[in-house]
Amino acid sequence: MAEITSQDQFAAAESDMVDAILDGAASLAANEWAPLNRVGDTNPPRWDDTVVTMPPGFREAYRAYVEGGWGTIAAPSAFEGQGLPSTLAFAVAESLGAANLGFSLGPMLTQGAIEAIVKHGSPELQAAYLPKLVTGEWTGTMNLTEPNAGSDVGALRSSATPVGDGSWRVKGNKIFITFGEHDLAENIIHLVLARTPDAPAGTRGISLFLVPKFLPDGSRNDVHCASIEHKLGIHASPTCVMSFGDNEDCRGWLIGPEFGGMRAMFTMMNNARLNVGLQGVQIAERATQQAVAYALERVQSSRASNPEGGPVAIIEHPDVRRMIFRMKAQTQAIRSLVYAAAGELDRAHLGIKGAKQRLDLLTPLAKAHGTDVGCEVASLGVQVHGGMGFIEETGAAQHYRDVRITPIYEGTNGIQAADLVGRKLVGDEGEQMHALIGDVRLETKNAGLLILADQISSLTEILVKASVDDRLAASAPYLTMVSVMTCGWLMERQRTAATELIANGQVSPSFLKAKIATVNWYLAHIVPEATGLAVSVSEGGKGLYDLNTEELSV
Amino acid sequence: MAEITSQDQFAAAESDMVDAILDGAASLAANEWAPLNRVGDTNPPRWDDTVVTMPPGFREAYRAYVEGGWGTIAAPSAFEGQGLPSTLAFAVAESLGAANLGFSLGPMLTQGAIEAIVKHGSPELQAAYLPKLVTGEWTGTMNLTEPNAGSDVGALRSSATPVGDGSWRVKGNKIFITFGEHDLAENIIHLVLARTPDAPAGTRGISLFLVPKFLPDGSRNDVHCASIEHKLGIHASPTCVMSFGDNEDCRGWLIGPEFGGMRAMFTMMNNARLNVGLQGVQIAERATQQAVAYALERVQSSRASNPEGGPVAIIEHPDVRRMIFRMKAQTQAIRSLVYAAAGELDRAHLGIKGAKQRLDLLTPLAKAHGTDVGCEVASLGVQVHGGMGFIEETGAAQHYRDVRITPIYEGTNGIQAADLVGRKLVGDEGEQMHALIGDVRLETKNAGLLILADQISSLTEILVKASVDDRLAASAPYLTMVSVMTCGWLMERQRTAATELIANGQVSPSFLKAKIATVNWYLAHIVPEATGLAVSVSEGGKGLYDLNTEELSV
Repeated sequence: MAEITSQDQFAAAESDMVDAILDGAASLAANEWAPLNRVGDTNPPRWDDTVVTMPPGFREAYRAYVEGGWGTIAAPSAFEGQGLPSTLAFAVAESLGAANLGFSLGPMLTQGAIEAIVKHGSPELQAAYLPKLVTGEWTGTMNLTEPNAGSDVGALRSSATPVGDGSWRVKGNKIFITFGEHDLAENIIHLVLARTPDAPAGTRGISLFLVPKFLPDGSRNDVHCASIEHKLGIHASPTCVMSFGDNEDCRGWLIGPEFGGMRAMFTMMNNARLNVGLQGVQIAERATQQAVAYALERVQSSRASNPEGGPVAIIEHPDVRRMIFRMKAQTQAIRSLVYAAAGELDRAHLGIKGAKQRLDLLTPLAKAHGTDVGCEVASLGVQVHGGMGFIEETGAAQHYRDVRITPIYEGTNGIQAADLVGRKLVGDEGEQMHALIGDVRLETKNAGLLILADQISSLTEILVKASVDDRLAASAPYLTMVSVMTCGWLMERQRTAATELIANGQVSPSFLKAKIATVNWYLAHIVPEATGLAVSVSEGGKGLYDLNTEELSV
Repeated sequence: MAEITSQDQFAAAESDMVDAILDGAASLAANEWAPLNRVGDTNPPRWDDTVVTMPPGFREAYRAYVEGGWGTIAAPSAFEGQGLPSTLAFAVAESLGAANLGFSLGPMLTQGAIEAIVKHGSPELQAAYLPKLVTGEWTGTMNLTEPNAGSDVGALRSSATPVGDGSWRVKGNKIFITFGEHDLAENIIHLVLARTPDAPAGTRGISLFLVPKFLPDGSRNDVHCASIEHKLGIHASPTCVMSFGDNEDCRGWLIGPEFGGMRAMFTMMNNARLNVGLQGVQIAERATQQAVAYALERVQSSRASNPEGGPVAIIEHPDVRRMIFRMKAQTQAIRSLVYAAAGELDRAHLGIKGAKQRLDLLTPLAKAHGTDVGCEVASLGVQVHGGMGFIEETGAAQHYRDVRITPIYEGTNGIQAADLVGRKLVGDEGEQMHALIGDVRLETKNAGLLILADQISSLTEILVKASVDDRLAASAPYLTMVSVMTCGWLMERQRTAATELIANGQVSPSFLKAKIATVNWYLAHIVPEATGLAVSVSEGGKGLYDLNTEELSV
């Protein structure tokens, strides 16, 4: 952090100010957003003839977000933003998402739209749309997916034809559009991928358009919400089927050059991937806090080591305590990973050498491992609650449902793993990966972590030379191994810092002592566990294609 | 199977008859029960002033079950049963539970009640209650849990006082009572744990009572359903709060001797634990079938190894195929484990030497590992579906919700792990465990499995001598290791059998070829993965108790 805030550009992020922002976000999250988490789950948004009505209380809670300026933190100061580090915006987002994941998706998508318009929009579009998107008076969406174009974005069919006055006529149907319609904001700014006339096939022929719900003259644009989905979780977030140009009169404006859609989309997407990794942290943290509170309060059975001692809080039972340690260790581990990536995002903005490359490498790890672990921790949270965990009123089950989307959206975790072993590994023949391994080896003194680093080093050599099929078949366990190595390294750093602070007589040692115990547990349990995946990685795709369709179906 | 059916007692289980029974069960499951799975999920039972109305169609589907005699398979022939092996009853239950898990809980609990009355009930109770429980005209329940007596059964407060005519007056409140009330059957027979006057504290003072909803004279007994729970899954199963003796007139009869409640309960419970392990298989199988069908049908993107080849079914993509192989391998592995235990149950009934001991050892493995894997496979099923997996209409999400109760009920998986390292391991100083390891070592030729067996052998020595806390802290990863070793061994056996059948010119080799590929994958991936847990087991509870309450909460 010091490296980032010492730069002129982020000079405003002084320590006192950071504290004030984090306290304010925590207060908004705890007092306004968290009480609506179950409200949103049990009273999901209602759709009625293109209009979507949000759950009770959401308009007021969103107004508090806008009035507090919570969307403006990392946005450029030229457009009503505060120009503060992304790392700080992530910390604020962590509080809000932990309080109410479904609700937080609206602001998250808006940030992605802002980012794309800042990087690729014309000065006119920036002036017309950025200020109100930054304040949150308007919200943004990302329109990629079509029924037959999910992970394969290049297959999309939505079209855009030039009108002649600089605008385009957009036509098509999009699905899974988060916050595509709602009643929280005055306007909704859709960023829509579409194909222009005579565009080349596949991803090379895709362009990005800005399509506002209300046009600059105040009239209603021809874009409508055709229905909303009934989902496993994040009920508070309206997931919309969007219809563009049903009456042949949907107007849009190009963002970036024609055929520059994929590049602009990746601007939104990379940021969104880190944000989704952060959602893993959000739910893991909330599930952990709730499980700890329950395990400290719920009294059941004597300790097996002291049968006559009378009933104790269940956190005293070794296996429950193991689950709590696992939840805490895994949560802190993915937090370290996601914030390390966010730090590289800020360092890259500052032009610091190597930051962009490290960010590119960490992004699929943060997204996939952050969300895999988020799911695991939420499930452990249900387990710690016993039978009560299965009762919806307890809330543990909602975390388990809500978090399950995170390994799927913004590129499935399979796509992340493919990105890791493809673009990020073969792309530079393992150079960045070996640099990461080198950093770990240089710093760690932990034997288990060194074993894991050695395994990954050998496997990296194997994967760089492997066939495409073998590499992809190995990608998921390889991603887990690399993620755990990175988390272990970052956790060990935190332990070193905590130990030094205690040695220097830090006044509140509870947090530091807990940090040291949690890191110890992570290094002793999670790191060795990951070494068990090495055989699976080197095995690759062996045997996977021995079965034909009929044999796969029996 | 041959060993079991060659015995006089099970002579009726001839090969043709077994085939006919399995075909009939598959037909009932596919045609009557499966179509109601989503109906039950979206129209859960309704409670209105002590009356519970089941979802539409359930009365008819239950009648088909009763009329087909599907509940009678393994019940004693003296009481309307067919006296067939439990293994066969398990196979029937697998079909029905895969079709509709929530619905299948009613029959499952009824089987437990039958078992307890057969083993511990007086001839009068047996004559009065068994015939209609066996046919399914009446259903049974198991009433253990109270608000402050969950895993700690000994803490229960329900009471029973003698009336003087051989009956008892029962009073108390029970929670989480599966099928405690419903409109499928003429009568509901509650098996209720309660405390008699002057009973000793804890589990030693507990007795088991039979409490019918309708008394032998046809009058309504003073037992009522006070409410039903709103749960994460298995919505079709009414989970009831039961009130006994609100009007001081609830009659019950002792099953077994006074203070013999725990023993009688364990009769029900051990059988129920295997059945819950089987539920892991049920959901894993259904989720796998659905995921395979989707992955074969859904077309998206070219193969990375053939970018110009055009879009393919997603099962052609290496990482999706890896997930499908994992689902299939894990499902088949837990099936082998649960059925091995069911086989020991039959062998124990026949008095075959060593069967009871092996059954006792396998029971916590089957329950805990079967359900852990069931959850993992259901989650992979959601992932294979991508965004569609998160949409409730697809059905994948329901499996993910339904299966999540299985690691919790009938003794949490933590309780199973404690049972494994306590009663089952220290109880005989590791003798049975070493016998199991010996069987694996004797038979396997797989290097990875031998490594795992060696690890478990050493860890068993450590755990037998470890402190209670260390042993319990290590119990969960140890249980996983032992389970994977056992599954690997059983899977390898299946591969040997399949290879021999192919060599002998078996006519339908698709199943056999798929079996061999799946076993290969299990041994190459899942077995090495489990070796990564060894450090965690030997680490035990180190550091777990270094933190106090305040430090745990930060």
